[in-house]
Amino acid sequence: MTILVNGERGNRIDPSDRGLQFGDGVFETLRLEAGRPVLWERHWARLCRGLEGLGIPRPREQDCLDDLRAVAGSPRALAKLIVTRGPGPRGYAIPERVQPTRIAMGGAPLAVPDEGHILRLGVCSTRTGRSPLPGCKHLNRLENVLARREWGADWDEGLMLDGGGNASCATQSNVFILEGGCLLTPRVDEFGVAGTRRGWLLEHASRAGLVVQEARLSLERVQAAEGIFLSNSRIGLRRALLVGQRDRVAGGGQASPALAMVSALGAELNALA
Amino acid sequence: MTILVNGERGNRIDPSDRGLQFGDGVFETLRLEAGRPVLWERHWARLCRGLEGLGIPRPREQDCLDDLRAVAGSPRALAKLIVTRGPGPRGYAIPERVQPTRIAMGGAPLAVPDEGHILRLGVCSTRTGRSPLPGCKHLNRLENVLARREWGADWDEGLMLDGGGNASCATQSNVFILEGGCLLTPRVDEFGVAGTRRGWLLEHASRAGLVVQEARLSLERVQAAEGIFLSNSRIGLRRALLVGQRDRVAGGGQASPALAMVSALGAELNALA
Repeated sequence: MTILVNGERGNRIDPSDRGLQFGDGVFETLRLEAGRPVLWERHWARLCRGLEGLGIPRPREQDCLDDLRAVAGSPRALAKLIVTRGPGPRGYAIPERVQPTRIAMGGAPLAVPDEGHILRLGVCSTRTGRSPLPGCKHLNRLENVLARREWGADWDEGLMLDGGGNASCATQSNVFILEGGCLLTPRVDEFGVAGTRRGWLLEHASRAGLVVQEARLSLERVQAAEGIFLSNSRIGLRRALLVGQRDRVAGGGQASPALAMVSALGAELNALA
Repeated sequence: MTILVNGERGNRIDPSDRGLQFGDGVFETLRLEAGRPVLWERHWARLCRGLEGLGIPRPREQDCLDDLRAVAGSPRALAKLIVTRGPGPRGYAIPERVQPTRIAMGGAPLAVPDEGHILRLGVCSTRTGRSPLPGCKHLNRLENVLARREWGADWDEGLMLDGGGNASCATQSNVFILEGGCLLTPRVDEFGVAGTRRGWLLEHASRAGLVVQEARLSLERVQAAEGIFLSNSRIGLRRALLVGQRDRVAGGGQASPALAMVSALGAELNALA
């Protein structure tokens, strides 16, 4: 893995960095094509939104892009960009002079599931708590770590419920269900992250003739859905089935027109470069 | 500030450390007297509880004590001990071989409020979300950072409410109120941290003739309380007043026997070495 810290290779982190001390920062996980992040404008906008919410000065956009290109390793790559508030003295108070730390990491092979593979989605018992920075991708990710520990051997992802028992997100992706011809996804105003692919889908679905809406999704609704989909920067949009649930389509049923429309929209999203 | 990483001075942190990537670790803030942490057994027990909850191997107890003594700087000192899951590859999944990172930091002067100073407690609008590791002191502390940013110029601390509007904790301490001769403090089974001083008070109060209980404390109850108290390892137990509220005792009222008992208990706690 290639790692740049403030643009320099081999740099290490000051132990007093507030990213480590408190998770005081934000990050993005990005798919790169030919060294350029796919849907960069959405990633950059969310990063800036998070930084603004925390009051951390934003880095130069071009520095981030240069870093990402440098760590990519291969034409198709996955990379991570982290911006923390940088080092500080003891205590939660913001230092008078903030020097943010910018970290770019890449080079791991990009593993994307086969087009036809339906992801197996287990249900985690770790619940999502209200996010301190709703919709943003901050560094307080213990919930995800704990949820990831729960994955069974045959899981590709884990569904996470909020305190009220409604679907919030998956361990590392956004969740959609197809119900009555509509694509529904949980709100992200309290829990979860406003995914870049989620944003793209909300914006582009109507063009494909699909209705995509935010909704409160009980586990029962997810179980009864005509289709379940997961999205993030690595997998794009993919079909999923709850572990133990039989695929009605594969089992002899017929793919509905809506299901076909979602597949077509997903293929378009996954082909973005 | 003196910092040891895995017992060595000058060491820096691997950017892939999961403490930085996800806040995947726990910490303790400790008051040291003559190089030895006060109430160490309680700190160590909570640290181990947090590590067990996360599935992180615990360090050797003696290594932690040696580190703390080395960073203390002066006979009376404040120090911080952090244990993270250590470096790892991309993603939330726990690495096969975990090598925890142990960080000890100390040497900042120990600033403790004067015995008679009543702390000014503002009310933060940042709410506490359900903790991923209830009662433990994990590294996901963005809520506290955001709450700390809200402090007014005349605040010594900030009261934080949970999503239901009940007192949860203060930005960096536990909260107690005196009501009907009882000392009441919020439960820590969903929000907040089980403070070492809080634990000591719950255990030792009855010996001093005081009843200390966990209770749901609405803001109204806090406002109407006969006394408010805050506790943590730095300040011990101290009286507080909500900003804008008049001190009934200082304003001509008479300190109740219960208030005097709390003060005596606090003095005993604060003198522990």
